[in-house]
Amino acid sequence: MESTDKRKKIEVCFSPYLFPLFKDEFDIVVVIDVLRATSAICAAFDNGVKELIPVTSIEEAIEYKSKGYLVGAERQGKIVDGFDFGNSPYSYRKPELKGETVVLSTTNGTKTINIAKEAGQVVIGALVNLDVLCEWLIEQDKNVLCLCSGWQNKFNLEDTICAGGILDQLLATGNYRSEEDSSIAAKYLFLSAKDNILGYLKASSHRRRLKNLNLNEDIKYCLTANTCPVIPVLKGDKISLDA
Amino acid sequence: MESTDKRKKIEVCFSPYLFPLFKDEFDIVVVIDVLRATSAICAAFDNGVKELIPVTSIEEAIEYKSKGYLVGAERQGKIVDGFDFGNSPYSYRKPELKGETVVLSTTNGTKTINIAKEAGQVVIGALVNLDVLCEWLIEQDKNVLCLCSGWQNKFNLEDTICAGGILDQLLATGNYRSEEDSSIAAKYLFLSAKDNILGYLKASSHRRRLKNLNLNEDIKYCLTANTCPVIPVLKGDKISLDA
Repeated sequence: MESTDKRKKIEVCFSPYLFPLFKDEFDIVVVIDVLRATSAICAAFDNGVKELIPVTSIEEAIEYKSKGYLVGAERQGKIVDGFDFGNSPYSYRKPELKGETVVLSTTNGTKTINIAKEAGQVVIGALVNLDVLCEWLIEQDKNVLCLCSGWQNKFNLEDTICAGGILDQLLATGNYRSEEDSSIAAKYLFLSAKDNILGYLKASSHRRRLKNLNLNEDIKYCLTANTCPVIPVLKGDKISLDA
Repeated sequence: MESTDKRKKIEVCFSPYLFPLFKDEFDIVVVIDVLRATSAICAAFDNGVKELIPVTSIEEAIEYKSKGYLVGAERQGKIVDGFDFGNSPYSYRKPELKGETVVLSTTNGTKTINIAKEAGQVVIGALVNLDVLCEWLIEQDKNVLCLCSGWQNKFNLEDTICAGGILDQLLATGNYRSEEDSSIAAKYLFLSAKDNILGYLKASSHRRRLKNLNLNEDIKYCLTANTCPVIPVLKGDKISLDA
């Protein structure tokens, strides 16, 4: 029955740990790390950054810094000592970054980008670019996996809600199908959260973690939809705008 | 702040793949495989089975069978050729099983039991024993992890809803706390499903899979709460009733 179904697939994977169970079936992987890596990346490109190099380890970040690059590095929600900035989206809104190349290493998001590239084309997803991302995905007409970065490989609520929002828009076209229970759950969670995402996530572990670090402004920025209408895609080892 | 919190923890882990991220923090692990292994195990003990030996591989199951044991083996929803039964709860309701020792190997559930025993005391959870299980857990007054078996290590909806139901009852006592986003999501999903679990799971992948195998009666059995008021616990390599 499924073999005659011409619709493309859209599914949600809750954690990089579970990604090996999914990776062979998709053309495009949307990497999602709402708090805060993928939101910051969208903010950077919306601000006119030229390209962004995601690196996994602090060692690589140090190497780029020694070569004169602007480098952001975040671990456990904080800027790593000796780096220019962490992963606050506001750090990437500064006028002096226009036209520049920036290097970024974060606890979850940049690692997930580097895992995802094994599987297919990587595009950066967040609430801040939700609607344009969905339009772009629909134009591509390919099988899509939303890969949530989570928190240290555990499920998190904000990435799942963002994935559910993408799923909801793609399924509404009638040209996509979705079979995994994780996708069904993401859509349920998005639909119950969408009218008040900030309130819905009040109890979430990550929001609590960032709130303790006085990052309330960042949280509001990252949980506000459609402020950065950009499509950052990975080409080789660098992220740039889809041209 | 958390160090002065005397409440016990109750959390939900969505997949055996994610279990390594949780296992060191809990005293009791509730293994959940609603469709159908843990429901069948509860049905067996409710029917008077004396003990049940969960084995991971078909090879072990064959070895027990050659020694004269009654052996159930299921893979991909079907009885494995040459075995007495699979994991339909109805197979375990037969009068001739009273007082017997039964061996069982299933696609997901028995593997999860054997993983869980590394971490702490294992107890069998399902919707069919939901309320007595919660009472028992509350009496133990220990840190509890609900470990969902999922489907081939992927998230599934029915195990998550069952875990959310356990969480809901334990949190209601005021003596437990829950911090993981997976736990928050499980509770949300349980609360929206609880008045019509069968309808809520209509679209779920596993229910579709079993429906295609004509297992509608099994599905109804497994999704009906509180028909088997038993507490099966693992002692060594065997499951028996908590005495």
